[in-house]
Amino acid sequence: MKQKPLILVTNDDSIVAPGIRALIQVMKEIGEVVVVAPDKAQSAMGHAVTINSTLSIERVSIDPDLDAEYSCSGTPVDCVKIALDQILDRKPDICVSGINHGSNSSINVIYSGTMSAALEAGMSGIPAIGFSLQDFSWNANFDEVMSFVKQLTLETLKNGLPEGIVLNVNFPKLKKEEIQGIKICRQAKATWQEKFDKRVSPHGKEYYWLTGEFVNQDKGEDTDEWALKHGYISVVPVQFDLTAYHAIQQLNRWEL
Amino acid sequence: MKQKPLILVTNDDSIVAPGIRALIQVMKEIGEVVVVAPDKAQSAMGHAVTINSTLSIERVSIDPDLDAEYSCSGTPVDCVKIALDQILDRKPDICVSGINHGSNSSINVIYSGTMSAALEAGMSGIPAIGFSLQDFSWNANFDEVMSFVKQLTLETLKNGLPEGIVLNVNFPKLKKEEIQGIKICRQAKATWQEKFDKRVSPHGKEYYWLTGEFVNQDKGEDTDEWALKHGYISVVPVQFDLTAYHAIQQLNRWEL
Repeated sequence: MKQKPLILVTNDDSIVAPGIRALIQVMKEIGEVVVVAPDKAQSAMGHAVTINSTLSIERVSIDPDLDAEYSCSGTPVDCVKIALDQILDRKPDICVSGINHGSNSSINVIYSGTMSAALEAGMSGIPAIGFSLQDFSWNANFDEVMSFVKQLTLETLKNGLPEGIVLNVNFPKLKKEEIQGIKICRQAKATWQEKFDKRVSPHGKEYYWLTGEFVNQDKGEDTDEWALKHGYISVVPVQFDLTAYHAIQQLNRWEL
Repeated sequence: MKQKPLILVTNDDSIVAPGIRALIQVMKEIGEVVVVAPDKAQSAMGHAVTINSTLSIERVSIDPDLDAEYSCSGTPVDCVKIALDQILDRKPDICVSGINHGSNSSINVIYSGTMSAALEAGMSGIPAIGFSLQDFSWNANFDEVMSFVKQLTLETLKNGLPEGIVLNVNFPKLKKEEIQGIKICRQAKATWQEKFDKRVSPHGKEYYWLTGEFVNQDKGEDTDEWALKHGYISVVPVQFDLTAYHAIQQLNRWEL
């Protein structure tokens, strides 16, 4: 009999976040689950890794069904690295990250710890998916999207993914029956316009909170933002080869 | 008379690193310089931003020629964001990041705070360049590459950059006269193979240092790794649209 798929589960909202617990529920129906996730919230950590300090992992038991759950003191990318090198005894068949509390569509992919963990797995040749729900709240309802998480994971296990590519999956905050379907998309051109909130401490020192406004400059109907706005689940294939191939010719005309 | 170009200078090795001081020397010859850089080393921070704690900036005066030097408690990306929103009174004509102590070629671009700062500026429509020298030491000799830093910055100011693109420039550790020239390249396919160094604290607790071995799987002669190995300066145009366009068609054949 074929071995059950080995599934590495991680996230950036911490190992106790409802989003990762929902993801684990789905993955238990599919294969053998190993969880390695941050011991605290690590949102917006991007592809940060811990090189100037040390890391620790602790075996925990949050889900009594699982043999292998580890909380890690590091970033989401650290979690994937330490899972592959120190925890797993074979290469996982897939790595799933999330379900993130909040959107990682369009430019958010760059800042996202959830997606960076998936990209890190992809860099080691492991099919990987980052899942995110357009709802920042801790009590977000993940039940509505769990059947889609299962479907996308099974399709990825069946088909594999092209080399160098991982999936960025975002769910609209809708009831299951309101969801229009799944769309393969491109990343919308969008930015965050910063608005720092400047304050003064009781000791007279100025400090700032980073806030911002999300601005979508992209009217394309093939983008993730369009899909989500129209009730679809967006799936963007993302890559870690950042080369802008179309610009090489132009730069070759410079006087260098 | 035309206004001098406004140049935002940042890095990830901290505002006192010799690499940024060398970069500032060059930029003073080109335009009006504003420095906003981390108050401590922020290597390998990727595109992390500070959202779960506060930020502070402090006006400092390390270079008596400059009117505007700020050290920031945050990541390299935070530095760019706070510079644009709170410090600068107009949009800079260019943002330069570095000179990094150590290579940011090939896959290192993903982990690099230096390059993430440049990408963040690019996301705000500012031409941006990340400069890195293949020498990790604090006492690295930046003198050999300063004329090239100037040339590349002037060319970028003259030509602009295509929308959505920033430059990843890496210098080989060579004397100026040994450098073979400048090559426009693609990012080599390379990875870090993790090797965690496991130790035990005096209190009996296990902990890890992240180490790894760089492995270049790419034999292409059009890559940054090839260029650097053969004595060239590598210039890779990098983008923050991570969409793998070539994979969209393939994914559309899935049963979704």
